[in-house]
Amino acid sequence: MIKTIFWKNNTVVLIDQNALPLAEKYITCKSYKEVIACIKDLTVRGAPAIGIAAAMGTALGALNLPSLSPEKFRHKFLTLCDEIAEARPTARNLFWALERMKKLIDHSNPTSQQSLVNELIKEAKLICSEDIAINRQMGKNGSALLSEGDNVLTHCNAGALATAGYGTALGVIRAAHGQRKKLHVYVDETRPVLQGARLTAWELKKEKIPHTLITDNMAGFLMQQGKIDKIIVGADRIAANGDTANKIGTYSLALLAQAHGIPLYIAAPLSTIDVSLKTGGSIPIEERKSDEVTHFKGVRSAPEKTRVYNPAFDVTPAFLITAIITEKGILRKPFRNAITRLHKGAKL
Amino acid sequence: MIKTIFWKNNTVVLIDQNALPLAEKYITCKSYKEVIACIKDLTVRGAPAIGIAAAMGTALGALNLPSLSPEKFRHKFLTLCDEIAEARPTARNLFWALERMKKLIDHSNPTSQQSLVNELIKEAKLICSEDIAINRQMGKNGSALLSEGDNVLTHCNAGALATAGYGTALGVIRAAHGQRKKLHVYVDETRPVLQGARLTAWELKKEKIPHTLITDNMAGFLMQQGKIDKIIVGADRIAANGDTANKIGTYSLALLAQAHGIPLYIAAPLSTIDVSLKTGGSIPIEERKSDEVTHFKGVRSAPEKTRVYNPAFDVTPAFLITAIITEKGILRKPFRNAITRLHKGAKL
Repeated sequence: MIKTIFWKNNTVVLIDQNALPLAEKYITCKSYKEVIACIKDLTVRGAPAIGIAAAMGTALGALNLPSLSPEKFRHKFLTLCDEIAEARPTARNLFWALERMKKLIDHSNPTSQQSLVNELIKEAKLICSEDIAINRQMGKNGSALLSEGDNVLTHCNAGALATAGYGTALGVIRAAHGQRKKLHVYVDETRPVLQGARLTAWELKKEKIPHTLITDNMAGFLMQQGKIDKIIVGADRIAANGDTANKIGTYSLALLAQAHGIPLYIAAPLSTIDVSLKTGGSIPIEERKSDEVTHFKGVRSAPEKTRVYNPAFDVTPAFLITAIITEKGILRKPFRNAITRLHKGAKL
Repeated sequence: MIKTIFWKNNTVVLIDQNALPLAEKYITCKSYKEVIACIKDLTVRGAPAIGIAAAMGTALGALNLPSLSPEKFRHKFLTLCDEIAEARPTARNLFWALERMKKLIDHSNPTSQQSLVNELIKEAKLICSEDIAINRQMGKNGSALLSEGDNVLTHCNAGALATAGYGTALGVIRAAHGQRKKLHVYVDETRPVLQGARLTAWELKKEKIPHTLITDNMAGFLMQQGKIDKIIVGADRIAANGDTANKIGTYSLALLAQAHGIPLYIAAPLSTIDVSLKTGGSIPIEERKSDEVTHFKGVRSAPEKTRVYNPAFDVTPAFLITAIITEKGILRKPFRNAITRLHKGAKL
């Protein structure tokens, strides 16, 4: 299995997602600031993977602190958590992971700074291993929605690379493929950063799952031709009513799916759901720098000084979503009720 | 004004659209086979410009024929027309231009091969100069649809570069801008060949018309935010009922426009209308080679041997189109009636 992120000899090791698919290499972060840089520059991306990187980042930061009084240690730790929180604004999992690490500090009774650091490292590793288990369960749950012979469209990369391993949306496809269902995947290349072309196609090739790469603007034409049976994507943040922020272009796909009567499934762990937000309108949408649009790998496509708008995400309203696949089961509309039930019963 | 294509010293000169916007250079074709190569590799693209290139290509082919009997000359000429007709399948203007050149041969009574060749060259030049006049008239007609302060989205390049000059969809924007209406243009980059980023942004920069570049998958999000007032695009072929083939992605835009109540205008000369086709279902859709999708300027984005689907066009059904702007006026629904009236009255 692809190893996206792991803790090794007191460092955080990440597969370099900017180098894929041309090179498969790993980057070793020795400080939490290096982890922040890797989150910012998309070396590590995908909401669950960002969460894990954030958790490991806090552990790395704690590990590298000098010997301090418990008070000062706590203060320094919370400060570095705040710093990591600034890395990217949209993915809920980043904040979820930081809250979990901060909760550990609040509730632990360590005998020494060293033992607290060890607990933090253990917790970060746990978030990582739990993520794989969650994805496998999500895959199992969601695979029931995919049928023999389905042509499934996916957008961006919600695969092993977006998580600790196995993936969310691609995890569902993986699980169905593992059950020997014959599937064919259409892969949106996903401009501007081309996570579909670079990462999803790479994962599907490794798994020998049949797939065809298209540009994002071809998806509607494929639907018109009856070439798409289902759409499945991941999520960066889901509001309490089911509104879902995901990679830019997801909202367009959702409208196209509705016009063609094609189901749209979101696959995401509970850690992506933000019950503090009533609707998707409050989800912060990151805008990234313009050269992602004007350049590709250093080659310029647009004239110099061309003005660019580059939102990295959009919000799909809940009514356009057929179901949300989680590790606790498949949520159906009205999502607000389903999410509330889950929140009460399952400690979101 | 940008010179896209012209006849000079018995050669056809084309601006190299593959080199734009990084370099502004011209390519000189000394044979009709070089013109075919330039149509195939997109050195010249855009339905009206392809038509002009085809017409000039036939003239160049005729010019370079040895002295022949009228019968043999006619046969050779028709053969080279057939060869040019194979260059690209979708744009109606290519076939329209070839038919016009063949009609000239059928109806002329030349005193010599040289005088016939001169007539062909004159006709090709006439098609070129007429195109600019047509575009200016289309711009004038269509500009009435654009209002002060409009945010207009366009896809691909339907500008001076897609024609002899001035442009179809961009011609309408140019005309409204010339009337001192304040407009802002959102430019879809238009994958895979990036005609929006490379060509439309370049033209708008030259004309100092305010514009913002986006990736194709952002258009829906912009509409959701109320940032788009109108959409205007060109066309490669329009069927008798108004169904319109245009650059891949246009159909998706049309559905998104419908969902948001945004008008979609097509701007195209009558030479783009193919009254022989009852509906758009019969329009041949060109599929182009996969490396347009897997590579960008020689830089690979997808894994090796990734399977690709690369249709260059899609067909937007007439019901999604608000109006078709032509040099003879603005066509409204039902387009079949409007087109029939035009066909009867105006010698299509």
